[in-house]
Amino acid sequence: MLIIGERINSTRKLISEAIARRDASFIIDEALTQVAAGADYLDVNAGHMPDEQDSLKWLVEVVQGATETPICLDSASPEVIRKVIPLVDKTPIINSVTLESVRLEPLLSIVGSKKVKFIGLCQSSDKLASTREAKLELAGRLVEEGCKFNVPLDDLYIDPLVFPIATDSSSALSTLDAIREIMESFPGVHTICGMTNVSYGLPARKLVNKTFLTMAMLCKLDSVIIDPTDKEIYAAIKAGNALLNQDEFCLEFIEAYREGRLPGSR
Amino acid sequence: MLIIGERINSTRKLISEAIARRDASFIIDEALTQVAAGADYLDVNAGHMPDEQDSLKWLVEVVQGATETPICLDSASPEVIRKVIPLVDKTPIINSVTLESVRLEPLLSIVGSKKVKFIGLCQSSDKLASTREAKLELAGRLVEEGCKFNVPLDDLYIDPLVFPIATDSSSALSTLDAIREIMESFPGVHTICGMTNVSYGLPARKLVNKTFLTMAMLCKLDSVIIDPTDKEIYAAIKAGNALLNQDEFCLEFIEAYREGRLPGSR
Repeated sequence: MLIIGERINSTRKLISEAIARRDASFIIDEALTQVAAGADYLDVNAGHMPDEQDSLKWLVEVVQGATETPICLDSASPEVIRKVIPLVDKTPIINSVTLESVRLEPLLSIVGSKKVKFIGLCQSSDKLASTREAKLELAGRLVEEGCKFNVPLDDLYIDPLVFPIATDSSSALSTLDAIREIMESFPGVHTICGMTNVSYGLPARKLVNKTFLTMAMLCKLDSVIIDPTDKEIYAAIKAGNALLNQDEFCLEFIEAYREGRLPGSR
Repeated sequence: MLIIGERINSTRKLISEAIARRDASFIIDEALTQVAAGADYLDVNAGHMPDEQDSLKWLVEVVQGATETPICLDSASPEVIRKVIPLVDKTPIINSVTLESVRLEPLLSIVGSKKVKFIGLCQSSDKLASTREAKLELAGRLVEEGCKFNVPLDDLYIDPLVFPIATDSSSALSTLDAIREIMESFPGVHTICGMTNVSYGLPARKLVNKTFLTMAMLCKLDSVIIDPTDKEIYAAIKAGNALLNQDEFCLEFIEAYREGRLPGSR
């Protein structure tokens, strides 16, 4: 399970304040904490800053200066991503491309100049994919567009999107079915999903989020954007890996317990 | 999700002591607590008592006198079950039939005299089914034998068995695959599974058990033998139902929260 650490995001007040005062040590601490907690990539987002582009450049430089862990470059603006990407030194994941024409070509055409990976959302100009069928159709189009721009399947992380079950009782199941079918239909491609939207409007949200993650792992979801310091989500991933035969003799599970990262340990 | 409450079992020291001193109020309290917590059936087991048959008769009478909730009659001895069953007033579940000849015919032939349901274990004289293929083969034979004795599929709860992942990393996945395929192959049949064996030998066992249960629910497992007063397992079931579109608008989930039965409530 590839873990993208989500904490360095300007929608979080402490982060936007740290960015505003250019507090590198605060950001470095957030970066190192997530790496120690198991992050494989660090998402950086400055979308809530008035100077998004400069702020994002600063974030990239600060994070890269502090850790070898690669970056997931997160912006709603293809223009900002194109301007910041020359600064990124390891192969980044771009978060995110959609099938909207304003985002699709400007982002995928980066491939000509730099090795990049993409998160692709099942979202087009006229459609947020809410049914299993729509998600599969848009996933197919993402794969197709990626092909045109020479993006190998292994560099594509498809996010089928999930909507709150509080307003659409079938939404989690549509997403789970879509994850399974995307992984079967396009061998080599990755799937990714955020874990918070599904529980919007409900109490006990963490319970719903980690239960959804557990089910998604069984459907072969192989990447997540989460807070790796969240003990419950991390424990669900470790237990899921052990149950799904991705942790021989449960050695990593037992190690996580010894490190005090599972319930009841320490 | 059909819940069989597992607490009235003589392998538990407090229960065997209560049975030994014929402490009806202790047993009634265990029965009513589980019913209040959501049990649809109450398992009763006196297998660890020197006078199993008399103890089981006493348990059945005590439990039936206290609640309308039907009984799951649990004994390794077909003879004991045959002797006790005339006392049972509601349609019970017999726990359990296997493909071993000493258990198969003596138990299935009860059907002629009384309406009963069966838990059928994927276990024969020479085989404990440990692979997906073996589980499916034995499940098919259970269905076949049930047919011979006029047991409708709806009265059969197939337990594919699960073995500890600590010693066989693929065992959970074999069971999950088997559950999915049994439910697809024999429409109308039920599947059931115990939740504790999978985590044997590991730390943080409750985490592993509830993660396994969550995955099994996605595979359409529709019955469990659990302690319904266990808050974590109960919460996993409620979250699973909500995510799997078995709880419209999450009303039951929200109610469970209001009743203080989910994490963070009250």
